[in-house]
Amino acid sequence: MNKKMIIYILGKMLGVEGAVLLIPAIVSFVYGERSGLSFVAVSVILAVIFLLLGRKKPESTTIYGKEGFVIVGLAWVLWSLFGALPFCISGSIPNYIDAFFETVSGFTTTGSTILTDIESLPMGVNFWRCFTHWIGGMGVLVFVLMITSLDDQNSMPLMRAEMPGPEADKLVPKARHTAKILYEMYFVLTAAEVVLLMFGGMNLYDAVVHSFSTAGTGGFSNRNASVSFYDSAYIDGVITVFMILFGVNFNLYFLLLLKDWKSVLKNEELRAYLGIIATAIAVITVNIVNIYGSVLHAFRYASFQVASIITTTGFYTADFELWPQLSQVILLTVMFVGACAGSTGGGIKVCRFVILCKSIRQELKKILHPNAVTVVKMNGKKVSAETLRGINVYFAAYIFIMVLSVILVSIDNFDFATSFSGVLTTINNVGPGISKVGPVDNFYMFSPLSKIVFSFDMLVGRLEIIPFLLMLSLDLWRRRF
Amino acid sequence: MNKKMIIYILGKMLGVEGAVLLIPAIVSFVYGERSGLSFVAVSVILAVIFLLLGRKKPESTTIYGKEGFVIVGLAWVLWSLFGALPFCISGSIPNYIDAFFETVSGFTTTGSTILTDIESLPMGVNFWRCFTHWIGGMGVLVFVLMITSLDDQNSMPLMRAEMPGPEADKLVPKARHTAKILYEMYFVLTAAEVVLLMFGGMNLYDAVVHSFSTAGTGGFSNRNASVSFYDSAYIDGVITVFMILFGVNFNLYFLLLLKDWKSVLKNEELRAYLGIIATAIAVITVNIVNIYGSVLHAFRYASFQVASIITTTGFYTADFELWPQLSQVILLTVMFVGACAGSTGGGIKVCRFVILCKSIRQELKKILHPNAVTVVKMNGKKVSAETLRGINVYFAAYIFIMVLSVILVSIDNFDFATSFSGVLTTINNVGPGISKVGPVDNFYMFSPLSKIVFSFDMLVGRLEIIPFLLMLSLDLWRRRF
Repeated sequence: MNKKMIIYILGKMLGVEGAVLLIPAIVSFVYGERSGLSFVAVSVILAVIFLLLGRKKPESTTIYGKEGFVIVGLAWVLWSLFGALPFCISGSIPNYIDAFFETVSGFTTTGSTILTDIESLPMGVNFWRCFTHWIGGMGVLVFVLMITSLDDQNSMPLMRAEMPGPEADKLVPKARHTAKILYEMYFVLTAAEVVLLMFGGMNLYDAVVHSFSTAGTGGFSNRNASVSFYDSAYIDGVITVFMILFGVNFNLYFLLLLKDWKSVLKNEELRAYLGIIATAIAVITVNIVNIYGSVLHAFRYASFQVASIITTTGFYTADFELWPQLSQVILLTVMFVGACAGSTGGGIKVCRFVILCKSIRQELKKILHPNAVTVVKMNGKKVSAETLRGINVYFAAYIFIMVLSVILVSIDNFDFATSFSGVLTTINNVGPGISKVGPVDNFYMFSPLSKIVFSFDMLVGRLEIIPFLLMLSLDLWRRRF
Repeated sequence: MNKKMIIYILGKMLGVEGAVLLIPAIVSFVYGERSGLSFVAVSVILAVIFLLLGRKKPESTTIYGKEGFVIVGLAWVLWSLFGALPFCISGSIPNYIDAFFETVSGFTTTGSTILTDIESLPMGVNFWRCFTHWIGGMGVLVFVLMITSLDDQNSMPLMRAEMPGPEADKLVPKARHTAKILYEMYFVLTAAEVVLLMFGGMNLYDAVVHSFSTAGTGGFSNRNASVSFYDSAYIDGVITVFMILFGVNFNLYFLLLLKDWKSVLKNEELRAYLGIIATAIAVITVNIVNIYGSVLHAFRYASFQVASIITTTGFYTADFELWPQLSQVILLTVMFVGACAGSTGGGIKVCRFVILCKSIRQELKKILHPNAVTVVKMNGKKVSAETLRGINVYFAAYIFIMVLSVILVSIDNFDFATSFSGVLTTINNVGPGISKVGPVDNFYMFSPLSKIVFSFDMLVGRLEIIPFLLMLSLDLWRRRF
């Protein structure tokens, strides 16, 4: 393994974080807040680390898949470890484990919080909190790739390791250009949402913060009551639509830029994604119509919540814990499904489910027609045996980690719905669960052990398990390569 | 598909059930109970069906895998539909859906009940209830194979379709001999338990009934308080040991008969099974020691409950809902794991988990050493790609059916722990869950829809999904073969 190159790239990455921290510092100073100094302090530390490690390129610069996974895993942990410092130093979140939880929740676009009074945070600190969503959504490595120079051969293993979904495609031959195009589309969509929210009467700061959270499908808000604070059907509608848009594979937007409408309309994952959303909204609307009096009202709250949960954003406009169990279980189910591969959303991803369903059908066909040749196809193309195996392994590892996490968290002795939905919501990067971690509750009451387990689950969920399993594997550290 | 042969075999099967029903009839008459007539009545109906369908062998007697699955699926449904009738006719369970639920729970060795006062049942009726566990444990088709004549070529697809686990082995070349050997070992172990329980002071009836339930890993008792009624460390100990024994792959007992100790000791599934049991007992003992005052007491209750749940029996000696959440979640986890393949126990089966873990490790190795050839091995033998694929598909289908069932059951609006653990306990053929379906509660309060969903889950769990998915597949009925 090329350890020198790993250290070099990580040094570069931390340097970029140092630069990024100057943005919330500026916001703080604009609002005349002393907490801006905490961002500057951490920025200086990171600049020193960059100067020490990230300046001199090693002789051999070649990296492969395994280095990609290691770099991505370590990069996310390091960004979170350092990103948590301003919360502590500024005194906003005095306990470091809490600050780490909050930062991981930010970068992984989960949106679970340990804060009980969000509105008392300084403007700059809250800006940083929501800005982590925006950077984490598209990927911290993709972000770094865009603004620093790395050979193309070195960039692909990194993009592959960070990109959500069973297969990573490049949009254009060069990885760096791909990163740029992705961030351009991301930026335009975010800006569009800011403008539309301001039309609805939001001030610039609120609009920016909520757009960051929507874009990253994160869910942090600067309001204790989340989006229900505004109580506006227009704002609910805009955010609903944008949450759904950010849950779509960004490759499809690139196809739209190329005017390839046909491929977009025929995309099986998109169809399944919209189909699941429509079904879930329909069932929940019927299920809660008694509570809200009219179908229109019920539809407004149902569609916002389904979009928020399936895209793993986690905003809320209603306390869905007061809804009937059927609605709650459907929300837990779409939490599990998640958004599309290649989007900013979390979860297992719609396309993995589509492929799993197809492989079940294929297995049944094999029993009925033992001699027939059957293949699993997606968007007309054969799914390779390798991808299929990868999905199966991912699914099994996901369930194992979930079960293990529920066991560890249950040591805190909260009720089953709390432990179970707490793990489900963090590993899928959603935000709220049910029972004691419902939309109007938070995670502050858990023990440090549980908070670390949840942080691990958020990272594992965002990076789709493999980088972390790999780091736990003795093989990686024991042998020389 | 050879429909005539399917009807012929099903006719034979129902004839056997008619004969079997005479046993509880005799028990009823011994105790001078009028309800014995209800068994005779159903027995007569089944005899007529047998004379009409099960006597004349069709010209073509060849069947393949698909017919095997269809016969097994239909056989279990038909045995349950007819087996439920005596409960209704005798007035013990007036509602037919309830009686069907109870019978499915019996044959599938689940042990969930809708009865609120078990001790008020007639002796003959309760005998039938527990006897269904004994027959269902080793498999109703294996039972029929043993006592009727079928060509060997026709028996194997049936045994394969019914046998729990990813691969079905024949012990000896002829399927009918295999069935006989299995039932001989089963009978000897059951008889040994009866004798040992009587040493502990149980009367013959109670000992037989509890041995049936232990052998089938079912969990029905003739006591409202289950095994805690006897409050005897000796009886708890005997049942604990026998539950663990019946959760072991019966092939291993055959190897013991052949004095092949080495293969038994080296068996990876057995080691994992005992390892999981030991770990779970240790953690729960520590977790509940405060409740019971002494380690010995805590160990007694922990070991009984772990053995009862992992083997999916479902007896209880303590209301484990009063235990801390950690213990409850560990019990839910071992519920999910289940016993060994080729045992009478349910669940996903230990060997499937061992193979899944190994395939995760293999996937990681592939990333670390892209060019190395890696294989998943079990007991020193390579696991075929087909078996691996089968396990993965099974696992995915299992999770899908579970999620769908939880959604349907949650329409009844019970809390999440009730709906979730109710589905988990029925699909794994365990018996009790937590919350409102805890050990001292039962399933009577659910709606008819939920009871049908639970019945389906019990059948799907016992037959390991494929037969039922196959019957739901349009392909099977649409096309001619």
